[in-house]
Amino acid sequence: MTFTRPEPPYYAVIISSALNDEDLDGYDAMSERMAELGARQPGYLGRESQTGPDGRELLVIYYTDAESIAAWKQDPEHLEAQRLGKERWYADYRIEVARVERAYGFERA
Amino acid sequence: MTFTRPEPPYYAVIISSALNDEDLDGYDAMSERMAELGARQPGYLGRESQTGPDGRELLVIYYTDAESIAAWKQDPEHLEAQRLGKERWYADYRIEVARVERAYGFERA
Repeated sequence: MTFTRPEPPYYAVIISSALNDEDLDGYDAMSERMAELGARQPGYLGRESQTGPDGRELLVIYYTDAESIAAWKQDPEHLEAQRLGKERWYADYRIEVARVERAYGFERA
Repeated sequence: MTFTRPEPPYYAVIISSALNDEDLDGYDAMSERMAELGARQPGYLGRESQTGPDGRELLVIYYTDAESIAAWKQDPEHLEAQRLGKERWYADYRIEVARVERAYGFERA
């Protein structure tokens, strides 16, 4: 709810992940850097994330279009972060790229 | 990660919500009933949810197709729950219906 979405269609990347509990400081620094760099990419709209008491994170990152998502995935610094994520930090993750077709909401008056 | 998704395309309903902090017992009972009833609908695949320390919930419910989502939205008991949600329980929510076009993952060996 922290940012304004445009009218659909737009895109959402849904990321469910759990950490490996090794080098968490390194992960935090990289995660922060990627969030900052990612937010400067063309087509970036915003993100929402919640982490449960078990440490599992559910993160949704929003973009105007699929091309922006594909371009960010190939960014050299992001590619290196993805490599390190698999090598060191993640126990598992699942990533889904989805086209938002409808959106609506409610806010108490 | 708790259930197997089919190959895309399939659908995700992304729900971000915060509660009003009134009648939380009533909300919990209704929420549990809707999760149970919703899981029995045709086209239901599974769900993933995380609630942050601020009480905000990020929930993604997966379906095979958009028609199943529309049918469940019109279920009479679910309609009543939606009405009560706006009347009593939610501070705000945002709901997005999205078509998953690509999915991939990683699991540590």
